[in-house]
Amino acid sequence: MLTRIHHVGVAVTDLDESIGLYRAALGAELVHRQVNEEEGLEAAFLRTGEGELELMSATRPESPVGKFLARRGPGLHHVAFGVTDIGKALAQAREAGCELIDAEPRMGMHGALIAFIHPKSLGGVLTELVET
Amino acid sequence: MLTRIHHVGVAVTDLDESIGLYRAALGAELVHRQVNEEEGLEAAFLRTGEGELELMSATRPESPVGKFLARRGPGLHHVAFGVTDIGKALAQAREAGCELIDAEPRMGMHGALIAFIHPKSLGGVLTELVET
Repeated sequence: MLTRIHHVGVAVTDLDESIGLYRAALGAELVHRQVNEEEGLEAAFLRTGEGELELMSATRPESPVGKFLARRGPGLHHVAFGVTDIGKALAQAREAGCELIDAEPRMGMHGALIAFIHPKSLGGVLTELVET
Repeated sequence: MLTRIHHVGVAVTDLDESIGLYRAALGAELVHRQVNEEEGLEAAFLRTGEGELELMSATRPESPVGKFLARRGPGLHHVAFGVTDIGKALAQAREAGCELIDAEPRMGMHGALIAFIHPKSLGGVLTELVET
């Protein structure tokens, strides 16, 4: 049911600088860049072979990413797993006792159905499911 | 040169409990489990489709994983990218100004050549390269 590690989300303070850094250091190329006003973030997706890095900066300090940066500083923010059937995957997580941030799948910035599981249910790891 | 997200490392306080949790919640199956006395950790590798989750608990509190848990609590610890040629990838990171934890590739628990890049060089993200 799990297909791969779809992407890893990283909170950054300066999006342009971080895009340049990952390009220079790892050869990860920018694929797509998008502001999400609702969530108060700007995201840049960089290709890392079959997976992606999602670099995220805050567009306002009180957004979730802004609070994360204030609390923990820049670094790993979440991991996203590809799943073949997100409805079944969410049901399995719920049955296992996980608290779901998204009780139902919603459309993500990738143009795919996504849902988040609360980090307190998975040992401190904010976990995203992406239907692939 | 980057092939995929090879695995994500997660620091946990109770390895058995975490293996059970990820199995129940995501259907991630245990592939391999290994104590690394030198690094003071026990690792469990769980298959997540093409990628893996590396769950790590400390075998002594003063080990790097033990210190990480004391400082930050359980959660995302590092990300590992597959690369076709680890020598070239390390040279590229060095030329980009990254501080390398491993100046030369070494054999990792996966039976593949690995090397770590210091988190301060990549925006707080401890980054591993794995030759695939």
